[in-house]
Amino acid sequence: MRFEHENLPQRIRFGSGEAAAMLAGEVQRLGAVRVMVIASPAEVGRSQKITSDLPVVHHHEEVTMHVPVEVAERARAAAARHQVDAVVSIGGGSATGLAKAIALTTGLPIVAVPTTYAGSEATTVWGLTEGARKTTGADARVLPRAVIYDAELTVSLPVPMSVASGLNALAHCVDSMWGPRADPIDRVLAQEGIRALRVGLPQRDRPDSLGGREHVLYAAHLSAVAFSSAGSGLHHKICHVLGGAYDLPHAQTHATVLPYVLAFNAPAAPEAEQRIASALGSVGAIIGLQKLRDQLDAPKALRDYGFAESDIDGAVDAILPAVPVNNPRPVTAEDLRRVLHAAWQGTDPRTAIGDMPGRP
Amino acid sequence: MRFEHENLPQRIRFGSGEAAAMLAGEVQRLGAVRVMVIASPAEVGRSQKITSDLPVVHHHEEVTMHVPVEVAERARAAAARHQVDAVVSIGGGSATGLAKAIALTTGLPIVAVPTTYAGSEATTVWGLTEGARKTTGADARVLPRAVIYDAELTVSLPVPMSVASGLNALAHCVDSMWGPRADPIDRVLAQEGIRALRVGLPQRDRPDSLGGREHVLYAAHLSAVAFSSAGSGLHHKICHVLGGAYDLPHAQTHATVLPYVLAFNAPAAPEAEQRIASALGSVGAIIGLQKLRDQLDAPKALRDYGFAESDIDGAVDAILPAVPVNNPRPVTAEDLRRVLHAAWQGTDPRTAIGDMPGRP
Repeated sequence: MRFEHENLPQRIRFGSGEAAAMLAGEVQRLGAVRVMVIASPAEVGRSQKITSDLPVVHHHEEVTMHVPVEVAERARAAAARHQVDAVVSIGGGSATGLAKAIALTTGLPIVAVPTTYAGSEATTVWGLTEGARKTTGADARVLPRAVIYDAELTVSLPVPMSVASGLNALAHCVDSMWGPRADPIDRVLAQEGIRALRVGLPQRDRPDSLGGREHVLYAAHLSAVAFSSAGSGLHHKICHVLGGAYDLPHAQTHATVLPYVLAFNAPAAPEAEQRIASALGSVGAIIGLQKLRDQLDAPKALRDYGFAESDIDGAVDAILPAVPVNNPRPVTAEDLRRVLHAAWQGTDPRTAIGDMPGRP
Repeated sequence: MRFEHENLPQRIRFGSGEAAAMLAGEVQRLGAVRVMVIASPAEVGRSQKITSDLPVVHHHEEVTMHVPVEVAERARAAAARHQVDAVVSIGGGSATGLAKAIALTTGLPIVAVPTTYAGSEATTVWGLTEGARKTTGADARVLPRAVIYDAELTVSLPVPMSVASGLNALAHCVDSMWGPRADPIDRVLAQEGIRALRVGLPQRDRPDSLGGREHVLYAAHLSAVAFSSAGSGLHHKICHVLGGAYDLPHAQTHATVLPYVLAFNAPAAPEAEQRIASALGSVGAIIGLQKLRDQLDAPKALRDYGFAESDIDGAVDAILPAVPVNNPRPVTAEDLRRVLHAAWQGTDPRTAIGDMPGRP
């Protein structure tokens, strides 16, 4: 047993329908008296509802995907002009990202109120785009001091997006088992995230049922904590290439590729296999994952999303250099070709990958 | 799902035989150039071995149990005199406690190297004694910035003490399931702690086997994190009275009382029961705990340790007002009497507590 783990300082508040009270408590705890609220025009209604008890000096509505630098600059200028002493972000990854851009240069404390399962609120990672170029980094100052999770705020998230986002969180959890910096604490948190997703995701047929959304929101938090500590494993390296070079849809790519990576790595990662199986309430990790995917009508084959059989060789060449050196088992070009071919075709991962040469 | 959880900022390094290298890395990371090392005379040998690469300006050897204020004052004066910029503590709870006493008034950063399973290194709790009076408190400044866990440093811990200390960690984990501030993240960490104890403790017959000691050390860390977040539950309230008013030995009292509290609370705390059972690899929490206790020849009855049947009524009166209001089920004087009577006699907790009136 040999590892390094860093606990990030953050207060987590969780309570459905209690966002306003929890937010007021956390702002007061910071001693803030001049608050800037970041919420896109689409979020303004509930933003006003949950911030009415706060000493707000500025409502900022310019929220854009990927945080363009000019948008960040205008938000920083507004923070300075209004002499704010705390930033409250309400929304998904874009709202949190803008608050982080302010904190990065000012050190202002953030209280984040996520309304999606993006998970950015639990990490020190920031991102800015200048034209087509995206710059990312990690800085302790951008980590929100407190996060308010209120599942009622996610009820407006459409069910298909909720399921896609939940499967994305599942991929984060699975890859956290063997990411380059994965440690036992990451694995435990990821296992709990998978368990909560197994409970929450199948409740998608009752979109107004808070119980399911609470479980998925809780899992999204755990998956972000685990994944940002463990780093991208084989699964995310593959999906990054497929999403970038072949423009495949993010959520569907993750959902399709995950069982094949699991089938490939599991035999060489018995502890991870057992943790995933246990979290899924199943005798085996892959069986459990397939059962959950069936319940959710998850996407099955990359060929349904624009990936061609002739794309496989090029993708293999692009993925191979990115494979983490400490992946539970070595990965050859031939291994990747079989994984991608099976994912392209949508064959049963157990038979497609299970008989691979070199499998322990 | 409704909870509040605070993640404390701390770096955890874990590696057997690597204390010196990990310590040097963490001291460097702090940018410290004038280090004060706290280690009792008994620890001086290994202290010198693992601190030889550090910029040490003062070795402090006056380490006393319960941190008397005059000992703390002398250590603070030494830190000032030597203009130290970081404190390294090597040892058990007393060494860590003295470093915390310095940090409390000076804000100096601590790197802790625990050589027992005390767990103090993972909490913000400090304690000082003045004569017979002990003052405790919680302060973010006393939390060590980094903790170095090297199981080789625990090999000198005698096996019976190691087992007693491990059972104490087990009690922390179990009580973390329902302590007054227990949240799902505490429960997950406690569950992992119980799992690691189940793996590690039975290896006591091979005291030089590092694997077992690593698991117990890892569990001790998790139990401290979970317990300091969750707070004392019913079990610790009972043991506090038994230890204080009846002078019963700490570890034996915990080991004896635990199954009875578990048998009492489990029927009203099905999630906790399931987590404990799963961690113990058993179909039921109580069966699993009894099996582990049998393996370890754990103490069985309070009457073997100086507690008399006639003490029960007085103990009940002292415990009752301390019972946490959110214990999974209400606790009456009659309930406590039966729990204590069974623990005094050492009867099977399943039959002694299982047929209690009011059991769900």
